[in-house]
Amino acid sequence: MLKTLSTYFYRTSSKLDRNLVLKRTISTTPAMSTIEKTFDLPKRYKGTKESVWTEYIQLAIDYKPLNLGQGFPDYPPPQYVMDALAKASTQSDYMLHQYTRGFGHPRLVSAIAKLYSKLIGREINEKSEVITTIGAYEALFSAIMGHTEVGDEVIIIEPFYDCYEPMVRYAGGIPRFIPLRLKNVEGRLPTSADWVLDKDELEGLFNEKTKSIIINTPNNPLGKVFTEEELTHIANLCKKWNTLCISDEVYEWIVYEPNKHIRIASLPDMWERTITIGSAGKTFSVTGWKVGWAYCPANLMRNLQMIHQNSVYTGVTPIQEAVAIGFELEMERLGSEECFFVSLPKELESKRDYMAKFLLDVGMKPTIPEGGYFMLADWTPLESKVDLSSEKDKEKDYKFTKWMTKNIGFQGIPPSAFYNESHKNLGENFVRYCFIKKDENLKQAADILQKWKLSLK
Amino acid sequence: MLKTLSTYFYRTSSKLDRNLVLKRTISTTPAMSTIEKTFDLPKRYKGTKESVWTEYIQLAIDYKPLNLGQGFPDYPPPQYVMDALAKASTQSDYMLHQYTRGFGHPRLVSAIAKLYSKLIGREINEKSEVITTIGAYEALFSAIMGHTEVGDEVIIIEPFYDCYEPMVRYAGGIPRFIPLRLKNVEGRLPTSADWVLDKDELEGLFNEKTKSIIINTPNNPLGKVFTEEELTHIANLCKKWNTLCISDEVYEWIVYEPNKHIRIASLPDMWERTITIGSAGKTFSVTGWKVGWAYCPANLMRNLQMIHQNSVYTGVTPIQEAVAIGFELEMERLGSEECFFVSLPKELESKRDYMAKFLLDVGMKPTIPEGGYFMLADWTPLESKVDLSSEKDKEKDYKFTKWMTKNIGFQGIPPSAFYNESHKNLGENFVRYCFIKKDENLKQAADILQKWKLSLK
Repeated sequence: MLKTLSTYFYRTSSKLDRNLVLKRTISTTPAMSTIEKTFDLPKRYKGTKESVWTEYIQLAIDYKPLNLGQGFPDYPPPQYVMDALAKASTQSDYMLHQYTRGFGHPRLVSAIAKLYSKLIGREINEKSEVITTIGAYEALFSAIMGHTEVGDEVIIIEPFYDCYEPMVRYAGGIPRFIPLRLKNVEGRLPTSADWVLDKDELEGLFNEKTKSIIINTPNNPLGKVFTEEELTHIANLCKKWNTLCISDEVYEWIVYEPNKHIRIASLPDMWERTITIGSAGKTFSVTGWKVGWAYCPANLMRNLQMIHQNSVYTGVTPIQEAVAIGFELEMERLGSEECFFVSLPKELESKRDYMAKFLLDVGMKPTIPEGGYFMLADWTPLESKVDLSSEKDKEKDYKFTKWMTKNIGFQGIPPSAFYNESHKNLGENFVRYCFIKKDENLKQAADILQKWKLSLK
Repeated sequence: MLKTLSTYFYRTSSKLDRNLVLKRTISTTPAMSTIEKTFDLPKRYKGTKESVWTEYIQLAIDYKPLNLGQGFPDYPPPQYVMDALAKASTQSDYMLHQYTRGFGHPRLVSAIAKLYSKLIGREINEKSEVITTIGAYEALFSAIMGHTEVGDEVIIIEPFYDCYEPMVRYAGGIPRFIPLRLKNVEGRLPTSADWVLDKDELEGLFNEKTKSIIINTPNNPLGKVFTEEELTHIANLCKKWNTLCISDEVYEWIVYEPNKHIRIASLPDMWERTITIGSAGKTFSVTGWKVGWAYCPANLMRNLQMIHQNSVYTGVTPIQEAVAIGFELEMERLGSEECFFVSLPKELESKRDYMAKFLLDVGMKPTIPEGGYFMLADWTPLESKVDLSSEKDKEKDYKFTKWMTKNIGFQGIPPSAFYNESHKNLGENFVRYCFIKKDENLKQAADILQKWKLSLK
């Protein structure tokens, strides 16, 4: 299946051909007009390029490595989730095949409002304070486009999920970046908690033009779970500078003991300035369903609704019904051992530890994530074992990941993709691997690296 | 089901409350910042308002009329389509629950390319010349946003599907409107073919700034199926002025004998300047699946891909798989009696004729549609029978449809919603009804009107 999918991804190699076609007139047929027009992308999208995903998916097609790049499970989601979709597809409730409410399927916004009312500790109105979207991706799009005026500054914490920056630029906003920096740790492996913001540096970014800050906890790619103290510092700056907080919490349920996920919307006086974003894809291990949501006060939600109304209008009815059924079941057993939100992180924790061990064995230095299903590892201890001279990329992590794919058959993602142009060097020593994979595939990954290690001796 | 859905729609009555909340600072808590910021919608979205749908869905909730407003079937789609989704939801092909290719699920773009290659008469590349989207709605969004530079003019034919105008304005484009006008017809009912463009008027709209023209055939709300001669005239202007054609053909299969749907992309030298948009919702009677597509040359497609990549990224995997299965089946029996693309318009034709008859019986003057599942009717012969003085709307068709909903229990949509501000008068004499409804509901509609007619005597 994966291979079948992969062969269809857009080939970057045809970039040149495409540019050649972008002539001033569409056609060169002699009978055609001589009126010159450009059919380039509008200027506001200047600099738009293919994402790291397109390039690395193509790489995977070409070299067929063991691929730990993309972030999705390679095993089935919970049976009852699949059953719920199958049920929503049948004759008995046939109106589920027709349009549902634009701002969110009633049964789903009701479930979301109920769950998060409990978790946030305040009543969330299912009609005016919740929206469902085409994945968390479209929720981010609606929040950023709906709340960024031309010239507004938006603070983005690095490393960041790679769509934040182009979305802010599309809206005419000015992204201001601040990196999480790895503290010196002696005599132990770093964890994602060792990656911290400099408080003064963060404070220095806030000003009258700061419309919003985008936070991501647990963070992708690091797995950092922001602490209450860290979130309180951010919250105080938001309040001081009258700034919105767009909180991407798609990995909210994937947090490893003893860490706790804290929703910044639940901190004092933060509800009224926070847009919280979640994902059914991450919550129920169904990334292909593309159901996301946002919740926030009605006056802030209005802006998201207008963007949503004029880009996709409404979501998919049977898929939203199935997610609603999933939430209803999990809400009944919330906190118990059978609850998927409890069992999933338990299952992933052993995968995490297994991956940390095999990366360490081969000589890399992993950062142990507190949440999420990605691991960042420092690959530079292996620098003398690899010959990157054949790779033409600017950043070292691109060179390393490509070399590994081509020569060892093992693929990760270069984290400099998650930094802005001027900070890409901060990601270069690392590689991102995904561990929400079958145990047999993680075992195969370990074997490939072990074999490589032995060949070096 | 419909009622359950309806009660959740955003209440327009809370508009005032929302505006009151839109203060300069988000919160008024004393501890809060005194820094003044506006959290209004960015200026580029100025004038954005709730659509006619929101208002009329609320009206339906409040008055519970027989509702022929919204355009979706109130009966099941073909069994095999529901089965296909159920199948795609099961354990056996569990990777269908994870992300698929961003620019379109491989099996679906393959089916779409195959079908339209045949229909257009040229080879369409499934990887670079097809994209699948979140309904035709997102295809329109991607085409318009991706191909409208600030200041570009975009020609829109009235009456138009109501999202065209805000999308063009969001992109910074300047919509230029031209209405279809009803010719004088003597001694017979008009058909949608009697609504025509003035050729000189159309010619007068084209100039160096004309980036694109949006056409919609079969047209919603009129049902007009543009003839080859009409399309050739538009095509020649596009070629003369080096202008793109965005062709919304979502009702392509719903065309009544002896009319033929003609794809403007298949006219001479038009492939290279046409973006054609289609819809699984209309094609398979599953509006709730929100699967649409566009096909066009790779150099034009590039722009759509970039908008799609930065707003939703990818579509829903199991839903796209099910649509692909639907296409594969119908392609095998294309043109035969069992083909849904043949049986659906047959089934709808009798519903159309039934509706025309009962509207005529009550005294309205319907325009017989050549395609689509809507009918426009001139209601003004009934003007003396209704007292619209209690309705506060500006446009007469809003007054009439609201009066009918409240007093007769019968709801349609006011077509002035499908005209720009300066042309709303052209829609005021009409009402739009949808006839893709169960026979029993159409019969009930006829009964309600008949009863009203008798009460007038």
